[in-house]
Amino acid sequence: MPRLSHFDAQGNAAMVDVGNKKQTERRAVATGQVRMSAECYQAVRNGSLQKGDVLGVARVAGIMAAKHTAFLIPLCHPLPIEQASIDFDFSDQECSVIAACTVKTTGVTGVEMEALTGVSIALLTIYDMCKALDKSMELGNIYLVEKTGGKSGTYLNEKRG
Amino acid sequence: MPRLSHFDAQGNAAMVDVGNKKQTERRAVATGQVRMSAECYQAVRNGSLQKGDVLGVARVAGIMAAKHTAFLIPLCHPLPIEQASIDFDFSDQECSVIAACTVKTTGVTGVEMEALTGVSIALLTIYDMCKALDKSMELGNIYLVEKTGGKSGTYLNEKRG
Amino acid sequence: MPRLSHFDAQGNAAMVDVGNKKQTERRAVATGQVRMSAECYQAVRNGSLQKGDVLGVARVAGIMAAKHTAFLIPLCHPLPIEQASIDFDFSDQECSVIAACTVKTTGVTGVEMEALTGVSIALLTIYDMCKALDKSMELGNIYLVEKTGGKSGTYLNEKRG
Amino acid sequence: MPRLSHFDAQGNAAMVDVGNKKQTERRAVATGQVRMSAECYQAVRNGSLQKGDVLGVARVAGIMAAKHTAFLIPLCHPLPIEQASIDFDFSDQECSVIAACTVKTTGVTGVEMEALTGVSIALLTIYDMCKALDKSMELGNIYLVEKTGGKSGTYLNEKRG
Amino acid sequence: MPRLSHFDAQGNAAMVDVGNKKQTERRAVATGQVRMSAECYQAVRNGSLQKGDVLGVARVAGIMAAKHTAFLIPLCHPLPIEQASIDFDFSDQECSVIAACTVKTTGVTGVEMEALTGVSIALLTIYDMCKALDKSMELGNIYLVEKTGGKSGTYLNEKRG
Amino acid sequence: MPRLSHFDAQGNAAMVDVGNKKQTERRAVATGQVRMSAECYQAVRNGSLQKGDVLGVARVAGIMAAKHTAFLIPLCHPLPIEQASIDFDFSDQECSVIAACTVKTTGVTGVEMEALTGVSIALLTIYDMCKALDKSMELGNIYLVEKTGGKSGTYLNEKRG
Repeated sequence: MPRLSHFDAQGNAAMVDVGNKKQTERRAVATGQVRMSAECYQAVRNGSLQKGDVLGVARVAGIMAAKHTAFLIPLCHPLPIEQASIDFDFSDQECSVIAACTVKTTGVTGVEMEALTGVSIALLTIYDMCKALDKSMELGNIYLVEKTGGKSGTYLNEKRG
Repeated sequence: MPRLSHFDAQGNAAMVDVGNKKQTERRAVATGQVRMSAECYQAVRNGSLQKGDVLGVARVAGIMAAKHTAFLIPLCHPLPIEQASIDFDFSDQECSVIAACTVKTTGVTGVEMEALTGVSIALLTIYDMCKALDKSMELGNIYLVEKTGGKSGTYLNEKRG
Repeated sequence: MPRLSHFDAQGNAAMVDVGNKKQTERRAVATGQVRMSAECYQAVRNGSLQKGDVLGVARVAGIMAAKHTAFLIPLCHPLPIEQASIDFDFSDQECSVIAACTVKTTGVTGVEMEALTGVSIALLTIYDMCKALDKSMELGNIYLVEKTGGKSGTYLNEKRG
Repeated sequence: MPRLSHFDAQGNAAMVDVGNKKQTERRAVATGQVRMSAECYQAVRNGSLQKGDVLGVARVAGIMAAKHTAFLIPLCHPLPIEQASIDFDFSDQECSVIAACTVKTTGVTGVEMEALTGVSIALLTIYDMCKALDKSMELGNIYLVEKTGGKSGTYLNEKRG
Repeated sequence: MPRLSHFDAQGNAAMVDVGNKKQTERRAVATGQVRMSAECYQAVRNGSLQKGDVLGVARVAGIMAAKHTAFLIPLCHPLPIEQASIDFDFSDQECSVIAACTVKTTGVTGVEMEALTGVSIALLTIYDMCKALDKSMELGNIYLVEKTGGKSGTYLNEKRG
Repeated sequence: MPRLSHFDAQGNAAMVDVGNKKQTERRAVATGQVRMSAECYQAVRNGSLQKGDVLGVARVAGIMAAKHTAFLIPLCHPLPIEQASIDFDFSDQECSVIAACTVKTTGVTGVEMEALTGVSIALLTIYDMCKALDKSMELGNIYLVEKTGGKSGTYLNEKRG
């Protein structure tokens, strides 16, 4: 059976030793979405064009959370984030806001968790700002889109594209 | 058109004033899940019984994140959390781990965001600990299950039960 | 000679005991400004109307910092912030952005430090986002404008109005 | 018109990519001051010589804040701080305490924000510890004094010296 | 066999529900010490009188850590700290610095963990500042001295006095 | 008399400049223990085998605290932690749980403080989870076991082995 890398032979959790890994340029992109009522969707969509920029606040929250990842995810390594950005897209059909978070570092391990955490907190911030209109919003489709750099090379999620 | 509560008349984001709200006992439950490969699912499921307790680590991460919510979600009010717990369940059919986070407070506003943040960080921690086996895991179905207390009373999500 | 309240008889710093103080509604407003080159001022002023909303980011930073105050200022008491907002104004004559931060709580001590910290971090965020255009920006005129609630009652700064 | 570096072509805020910048030794010095009543000034000045060392506490607060900068300023890069110190000076004429914060790193971007944040939090800590004596204290003259290292080379503020 | 209160019937860790507990004034005192070489002890002892105040820095660190306790100890409840102080004493015979941390709150659960965390971080700060002189320092005798308030009433450690 | 490295000539505390130190692989191991009543000891010992895994929670707390060290210890340098783990051992005779924390980095200064902080917070977490059974638990024997890497080379504590 495959052994999970974050446990030693006794089954105790630990931060994996990355001291022997090469320092290379690494990049990860994650995505996710939040589905909401039509009324709520319109309010967010209009606000992003005019007064009431929900997505501007969510973007800042996501970027700050990406930098905070190693303090939220217990066995995640702290990394010198070199770039972090969050892009939003709209799906009128599904009344969904789609978020994508891109993170870069030059480090000994990848930034998948930073990208996924950035997306998740950005979506949760949208939830927070809209919950007076719609409590039944749902977050989903949160996954790693791609990852480059490091020993394992490029990873592209099949769902992508 | 409905106005989002977190913006003033000029469209500027702000923490909503909750000073006039009543201090009552409030409780929220949120859920979410992470779907993974069969191999990865087996490793998590077995580990929770024997060596390599992924869910034990994820539970601690989720509870700590619930307490940290107001520092992650920009306009969320800090609240004196009185109880926080995370339960996990397995769906063999979907190769999914399902998390539920329950949070309680006696305060002037609800703990929906704390429950949702607890669930999200618990699921992201599972991702982190399993990503060497499966990078294509997907988080989804993250939503508020129920909420009690406060002026708006009890909310039950229709998807529930 | 007046004794500073944050030291005991031996001269050791300590958090002042506020256990005997009454829980009342308290509110504080602080202000401050950042002066910059004409070129930089135009970029900020235009951006707030169109693309590149420096002030939107600074507002989020200031609100989050207000909630974080007790972890930055060593002897400051943690308080349940009930409202926090930041307003910006422009002085074309001085090429200055003026920030005002309002904070409210129902607690045993005031929120002056929260309002002052909110203003300071908002102004520092403007500096950060503009420093590629102008490194000589200067922060100043940071002070408490008013304070209500608590035993000492209402305080109004004479410079105000 | 000059474009602000922290926004993409669509006007969305993002952490600037510093992955292509050279890792060099960088240093920044910032200054600022807090003006207060004569009575308050005497208490601080005497305390720093005898019992009640306001400046000792403010120094610790400023150094800790300098290390915390990237978690306070949304688009600021986390950097491995190699040195941080805060010096205080007295202006008897203006009843002012003047703070200077020096920060060093070997990194891909400068430490201006760390030095400015260190100064600001040190001054706010002085305010906190003295506010029982004087609520009208004012922070000002906060600016970058000098900066060395990096592609743009040495910067010296004209106000200096 | 006695069951540990932080686990549910399935053996899962959780924050204990304190929603039904009474809000009363609570106070806790903890102590601890760090033993060091004679040379190192003299440097600390002299510094506290003249230049180089190790204990002043350690005091600030301990107070700040006490406020941070609920973010360090996973199942600890966040509490509105109303007072925190740290006192130091010297034992010339043992070449030890003894720390005592007192914390007060009006809340639904006690502040034992805050007092113990404050003492521990204060002692670790002494270690950090002296480790160039003596790496073999040892922390010990860290325990709760007394605790008042709450349903269980006053607790006095027998070792005390 | 030996001068403490964390103070300048005026006796002011500062983060020591480590910019001129070599980046090497560094490792530190610290240990400590918590002594408790026989009843409490049995509950912890049994729980680690069956339901109620105190040590699993304490391990996560210790690892997260090790990553947080530079934000707790005022003059400690932030370092890119590459590995962190905590091992527990039982002393039936003393009714003690013994913790050992190992931390690794490739950096310009050592990770002694990270290892000592990890041990201390892990032990405090055990205290927190057991305090309903025994309030008189005592933490002690906390010291650096060994340290490798850096200019001063390998350090082995004499008490070891």
